Amino acid sequence: MNNELLDTKKKLSQLEGFKDVCHEQGNDVPMPSTEVLQEIVQLARSILFPGYFGDAAVNTQTIMYHIGVNIDRLHFLLTQQIKAGICFNCQFETEKVDEIDQISKGKATDFIFQLPEIREKLHTDVIAAYNGDPAAKSFGEVIFCYPSIRAISNYRIANALLKLDVPLIPRIITEMAHSETGIDIHPGATIGNYFTIDHGTGVVIGETAVIGNNVKMYQGVTLGAKSFPLDEDGNPIKGIDRHPKIGNNVIIYSNSTILGTITVGDGAVIGGNLWVDTDVPPGAKLTQKK
Amino acid sequence: MNNELLDTKKKLSQLEGFKDVCHEQGNDVPMPSTEVLQEIVQLARSILFPGYFGDAAVNTQTIMYHIGVNIDRLHFLLTQQIKAGICFNCQFETEKVDEIDQISKGKATDFIFQLPEIREKLHTDVIAAYNGDPAAKSFGEVIFCYPSIRAISNYRIANALLKLDVPLIPRIITEMAHSETGIDIHPGATIGNYFTIDHGTGVVIGETAVIGNNVKMYQGVTLGAKSFPLDEDGNPIKGIDRHPKIGNNVIIYSNSTILGTITVGDGAVIGGNLWVDTDVPPGAKLTQKK
Amino acid sequence: MNNELLDTKKKLSQLEGFKDVCHEQGNDVPMPSTEVLQEIVQLARSILFPGYFGDAAVNTQTIMYHIGVNIDRLHFLLTQQIKAGICFNCQFETEKVDEIDQISKGKATDFIFQLPEIREKLHTDVIAAYNGDPAAKSFGEVIFCYPSIRAISNYRIANALLKLDVPLIPRIITEMAHSETGIDIHPGATIGNYFTIDHGTGVVIGETAVIGNNVKMYQGVTLGAKSFPLDEDGNPIKGIDRHPKIGNNVIIYSNSTILGTITVGDGAVIGGNLWVDTDVPPGAKLTQKK
Amino acid sequence: MNNELLDTKKKLSQLEGFKDVCHEQGNDVPMPSTEVLQEIVQLARSILFPGYFGDAAVNTQTIMYHIGVNIDRLHFLLTQQIKAGICFNCQFETEKVDEIDQISKGKATDFIFQLPEIREKLHTDVIAAYNGDPAAKSFGEVIFCYPSIRAISNYRIANALLKLDVPLIPRIITEMAHSETGIDIHPGATIGNYFTIDHGTGVVIGETAVIGNNVKMYQGVTLGAKSFPLDEDGNPIKGIDRHPKIGNNVIIYSNSTILGTITVGDGAVIGGNLWVDTDVPPGAKLTQKK
Amino acid sequence: MNNELLDTKKKLSQLEGFKDVCHEQGNDVPMPSTEVLQEIVQLARSILFPGYFGDAAVNTQTIMYHIGVNIDRLHFLLTQQIKAGICFNCQFETEKVDEIDQISKGKATDFIFQLPEIREKLHTDVIAAYNGDPAAKSFGEVIFCYPSIRAISNYRIANALLKLDVPLIPRIITEMAHSETGIDIHPGATIGNYFTIDHGTGVVIGETAVIGNNVKMYQGVTLGAKSFPLDEDGNPIKGIDRHPKIGNNVIIYSNSTILGTITVGDGAVIGGNLWVDTDVPPGAKLTQKK
Amino acid sequence: MNNELLDTKKKLSQLEGFKDVCHEQGNDVPMPSTEVLQEIVQLARSILFPGYFGDAAVNTQTIMYHIGVNIDRLHFLLTQQIKAGICFNCQFETEKVDEIDQISKGKATDFIFQLPEIREKLHTDVIAAYNGDPAAKSFGEVIFCYPSIRAISNYRIANALLKLDVPLIPRIITEMAHSETGIDIHPGATIGNYFTIDHGTGVVIGETAVIGNNVKMYQGVTLGAKSFPLDEDGNPIKGIDRHPKIGNNVIIYSNSTILGTITVGDGAVIGGNLWVDTDVPPGAKLTQKK
Repeated sequence: MNNELLDTKKKLSQLEGFKDVCHEQGNDVPMPSTEVLQEIVQLARSILFPGYFGDAAVNTQTIMYHIGVNIDRLHFLLTQQIKAGICFNCQFETEKVDEIDQISKGKATDFIFQLPEIREKLHTDVIAAYNGDPAAKSFGEVIFCYPSIRAISNYRIANALLKLDVPLIPRIITEMAHSETGIDIHPGATIGNYFTIDHGTGVVIGETAVIGNNVKMYQGVTLGAKSFPLDEDGNPIKGIDRHPKIGNNVIIYSNSTILGTITVGDGAVIGGNLWVDTDVPPGAKLTQKK
Repeated sequence: MNNELLDTKKKLSQLEGFKDVCHEQGNDVPMPSTEVLQEIVQLARSILFPGYFGDAAVNTQTIMYHIGVNIDRLHFLLTQQIKAGICFNCQFETEKVDEIDQISKGKATDFIFQLPEIREKLHTDVIAAYNGDPAAKSFGEVIFCYPSIRAISNYRIANALLKLDVPLIPRIITEMAHSETGIDIHPGATIGNYFTIDHGTGVVIGETAVIGNNVKMYQGVTLGAKSFPLDEDGNPIKGIDRHPKIGNNVIIYSNSTILGTITVGDGAVIGGNLWVDTDVPPGAKLTQKK
Repeated sequence: MNNELLDTKKKLSQLEGFKDVCHEQGNDVPMPSTEVLQEIVQLARSILFPGYFGDAAVNTQTIMYHIGVNIDRLHFLLTQQIKAGICFNCQFETEKVDEIDQISKGKATDFIFQLPEIREKLHTDVIAAYNGDPAAKSFGEVIFCYPSIRAISNYRIANALLKLDVPLIPRIITEMAHSETGIDIHPGATIGNYFTIDHGTGVVIGETAVIGNNVKMYQGVTLGAKSFPLDEDGNPIKGIDRHPKIGNNVIIYSNSTILGTITVGDGAVIGGNLWVDTDVPPGAKLTQKK
Repeated sequence: MNNELLDTKKKLSQLEGFKDVCHEQGNDVPMPSTEVLQEIVQLARSILFPGYFGDAAVNTQTIMYHIGVNIDRLHFLLTQQIKAGICFNCQFETEKVDEIDQISKGKATDFIFQLPEIREKLHTDVIAAYNGDPAAKSFGEVIFCYPSIRAISNYRIANALLKLDVPLIPRIITEMAHSETGIDIHPGATIGNYFTIDHGTGVVIGETAVIGNNVKMYQGVTLGAKSFPLDEDGNPIKGIDRHPKIGNNVIIYSNSTILGTITVGDGAVIGGNLWVDTDVPPGAKLTQKK
Repeated sequence: MNNELLDTKKKLSQLEGFKDVCHEQGNDVPMPSTEVLQEIVQLARSILFPGYFGDAAVNTQTIMYHIGVNIDRLHFLLTQQIKAGICFNCQFETEKVDEIDQISKGKATDFIFQLPEIREKLHTDVIAAYNGDPAAKSFGEVIFCYPSIRAISNYRIANALLKLDVPLIPRIITEMAHSETGIDIHPGATIGNYFTIDHGTGVVIGETAVIGNNVKMYQGVTLGAKSFPLDEDGNPIKGIDRHPKIGNNVIIYSNSTILGTITVGDGAVIGGNLWVDTDVPPGAKLTQKK
Repeated sequence: MNNELLDTKKKLSQLEGFKDVCHEQGNDVPMPSTEVLQEIVQLARSILFPGYFGDAAVNTQTIMYHIGVNIDRLHFLLTQQIKAGICFNCQFETEKVDEIDQISKGKATDFIFQLPEIREKLHTDVIAAYNGDPAAKSFGEVIFCYPSIRAISNYRIANALLKLDVPLIPRIITEMAHSETGIDIHPGATIGNYFTIDHGTGVVIGETAVIGNNVKMYQGVTLGAKSFPLDEDGNPIKGIDRHPKIGNNVIIYSNSTILGTITVGDGAVIGGNLWVDTDVPPGAKLTQKK
């Protein structure tokens, strides 16, 4: 048996034909860590929603201490993970480690500068979730329990990092929320204020989707791509615009699929279980044919 | 850089305009803990399904010891979390800490009194899952692996706590199952015996839904609200009846959406990918139009 | 209060009427452990995708060491869990413990022999995911972040174990992926090369489904059973063929439900939100009626 | 076998004759926790020696945040442990839980008020250790590595708690240091400034010992009791004065034993491996007879 | 650099000349685990001293449950570790795994049968420690905090296992106490009732030492070997009698060294810092020469 | 209360007068970590004593894999900790981070080159311990359980690092062994082959001590400094030679104290509880005066 195992070991150690799916992270820089990114998101949440997360009670007297400490730690960990993300994507030269350190630290700082703005946006999302759900008993319940707030928080954090050209990390952060909530928002999507998703499992919002203010979605809604223009090799062209543009004050009911670069006008209401691949005029009400 | 970080820290410490989304848990009572609630659910499961969960083999001779120890620990932890839930929702007076202790302990005891009844109900759910799924190899596989049994267990536990007027905790418990299984059952829903959900991802069962005995659902089924009566400020009225009433012996196939306070009669079969917002007579068979 | 708790403890210790939902694992063999199975899957992933998972950087010089160590540990842990699975399902005789040890070790070895083949298949799945998604930035991002790769990896591992007649463990492994990704692939399904699922939440692929090469699915797609032939007691017959057969080069868009032992021909395209329960000819394009 | 185990279980459950060595902690108040007390000591050390302990770098700008957060957590945990200590020693009445809460919180606060003074004393101990050991490379090495600093820190913390009439907890804290360093200082001892112990293993300093300023000891030194006055039952009288009084500027070399309520005068030097049970005049030099 | 590391790896992989200091544990039986042995000792302590250790309050109503559960777990873990110990010392034949299982289980059961007797002995040790130390405030403090009780508990457990011919495990258990308390009692020593050690650091009690009832020792006392008869190769003969025999009611003060197979008579008092290698008559009082 | 706590926080944040006992580790380089250093020592032990430590069985076929993986991880972690040690001791310039990285990596590599030699030396220590102790049942027991082997292993590792001019880390490594075993060997000491310490608690071996081959010590032995030459400020001069030089084949019995730069000649035997501060001629036998 041991000899056969030895053969299998040797076979698995020969990587010819698999080179492009193997990975060699640069000089001892560790891989991005989902565990550390979880701590980063948790720190960000404890800063954005004082008193809800983290291991201690805060009040107006003590909040400054807690935010001070949490931002320092967030800065330290985020710098480290941004560096891991940069080293994941490119084969950097040894002599540039220092430069990568500086770049990573700078991006982490720039991210922290945006936290007040992220808090303002999330504030509007909490209000929308509370107002839109008769089952919501309090703001506290919404912030502490609602999967949509968790998914939107991760998205707003990841979106800010993506705009700072941080590679890989934003996608990991939204996939973490995807795994926990079943809500898959690409960090590249553009989403306005007062955004709310009810229940949420199965929601997909694509990379180039644009969503206005005060939009509400239910579980299973897809804002997807219809078809992909192909390059000369027959493969889809990367990064091209391919997702819907949703106006303000739109409601989309559960399990509907909105596809392609179509426009859904302000105030439209799209019923459940629909397949929509053409423009929807402002104020329209779509329902499933019986 | 440090000075700019300092500015951001100060900005984030000023909570004007965010007061209603900040939280100040009362006198040193810790926040509800998802980790402890996981242990509580695990303890309840080890009591309800002897031999499947927990860290030791049990047999008829030893079961009494294990149930005795697990109930003691369940009582202790649940008292603590009920207290955390009560202190989350109201600003209690310092002098009433003792009273809250007594109330919490009483509710924990009352919950434990209901465990035999919860076990009987879950027993019927296991039978329904086993009988209804040709892929199920044994009761053991159903209890140990099936996400629906996990989601329904959490629901039955949470529902019992909600009936005891425990705030917040029931919702956290069903959201824990939602995150693990993609099945979102509001703790306020009313569900009969022999209930089974196949696969389950994307199922939503609303707060005021009522489900009879021997009902089977597939993944992606929604029992949702159609429209919300608004109060004078234009916001949905909290807690009002708004979800379907499902009779006995009903089957609802995958990804169908049943909305509003409609009635689905006994023995009805609702096909997949449907949008249903009117009453369904007993024995009806609905399918998607082609 | 203590006396009443004592009564409840006694009541819960009486298992009459619940015998078939209680479990007694054989002589001190521990229950299967989800935690250990997570480590097993993680070890398999670190072997199959060198450099992406595990706690250290590898390169061509060091890969042989890492694969050697990881396979030894995988073999040890898998032997243990296979044994736990065997002892879960049958009441084995004490004197056969040794035999069960040998059988478990043999199955673990046979599984390891299949790892090179599993790697080849997963390689094609990674290529399909990368080529099929304009948002995918690199093979690395696909392997490291994409839930579909995680779900398909667990499926391919579980499928290999199921073919070796390992009880229970394969199902736990696919349910682990179901919980993390919302993708529920039964380990008994048969799936060709270059298989990809986009987003994935809510996908269900049943026990007797067969999928050709180069098939792409979106979130919410079900390959399910339509009706179950009943045995003389009115219960579904276990294990009978009841799921769709999908040809090569098929695309199925989000939230469509394909039911029964129907055939979907090569090159067919099935639009979103459809309910399909009859054969689909090769090259057909189905869309939702408006 | 199982029946015999059952007998042993019953036998071990009968506590007649062992009542006074069994323990019943009051109404659900948990036992003191060595793990939490370790965190408490670690928090105190991170406050007393800024920058050496704890999980983040501090500088003059950030120190206030870290000390603020650490003191809040220290206060919370210490209150809890003081309560556990009070409930360990007496059978308190249920209706007094609230009162015990208030007392515990008050004592925790009073302890924190003494931290600046404790830091000043420990500062002198660090200077003494650094100056007295030619192997000490820096203050940093002394603070970070030296077992004597750890033992003296725990003693000074425990002594402050003992003076606040906190039961049990001070003893646990000095025993934690005893286990880690082999240095056993009773929390009731009285020790001046600039105190240093070199190497330290085996040092014992009794409950009623008094030590002046600028005293240095080596490993294995005992300040013990010689004989115990007995009460009418022939048992030693608890708490009576029975240990040496050491003056200022005294050095005691390794493995010497100083016993009884004798006085060692200022400036005395006691050589190693001596047994001393009579007064030592100021300035005396004692050595082992050859 | 990598090539040189490779050379070192190769060099370290060549075990010629080191064979007798390498270890190959038999067929996949894991090594003994200090972590598991810690849990075993903790379980034994929670059984022997009800209410002091373990994670829940017990009272006369609940003690039976807790002891039942703890003994089951102790039996399971101890069987496993005894097996690990047996497989550490001998190269067992594969076909005897089953037999080793049975032997290990039998020894674990036999150990549990002795727990009532171990409790009775430890009860006397607790009384002796409490009565002998004026600083001891309560039985509770002695049981919960005193290193001597921990060391003697581990010794009494290890001694019982050694008498059952369990290899290696007894020594690991006493070394665990040695590391925590600085008290090194060989599991083979014979120790009577009412045994107490004050402070304890540095105490050594050799393999063939015999200690009567009601003996008290202080820190640093050695009961050691004086000289070792050599075998024909010039190496000490293993296991030969070489340690002191201490009578009843003896007191030995700190740092004294008693060597060889001498006898210390009943009621003798040996002062501190002495080197004793000849018989001490009953009732004698020895002190250091000045 | 809160205001008073605030005052204390402010007081503790003012570091005037304490600057030299505060620490500011350079640019985000973390502090040395005792936890990581424990892993480093554990890795080294699993390499030096194949089969005894680490989480998997090894045999001649698999040892190369395990050593390969463990050395890679050891190299990675050690580089990190050496860097932490360098940044602990000096205020490095930001622009030199890269250089410190290179230096740290180089020292880690150089350390690994010395592992074969360290193994050879430790091999002799194991033989000496086994041969010298009649209670030792096997080489395995000595390697797995004996505190002296642990202390000497840590010393030999730390000594190699110290010779490579690694600051702080060597001292932490020997203090870790000191805490676990009560044996305090300064990493700067020079110790020959076949060195053994029996029991060990309380042993102290100073920075400039030199020990020949085949030396045996018992618990409580000190090789210490007698007096320290003072500098012009009256403080001991750092690093000066001040400890004994022990020849070959020397035995020193328990609790003896050897002080100053004296010489103990080859083959000398020093009895227990002695205070020795003058040269001891070769072959001499010293015993305590009676």
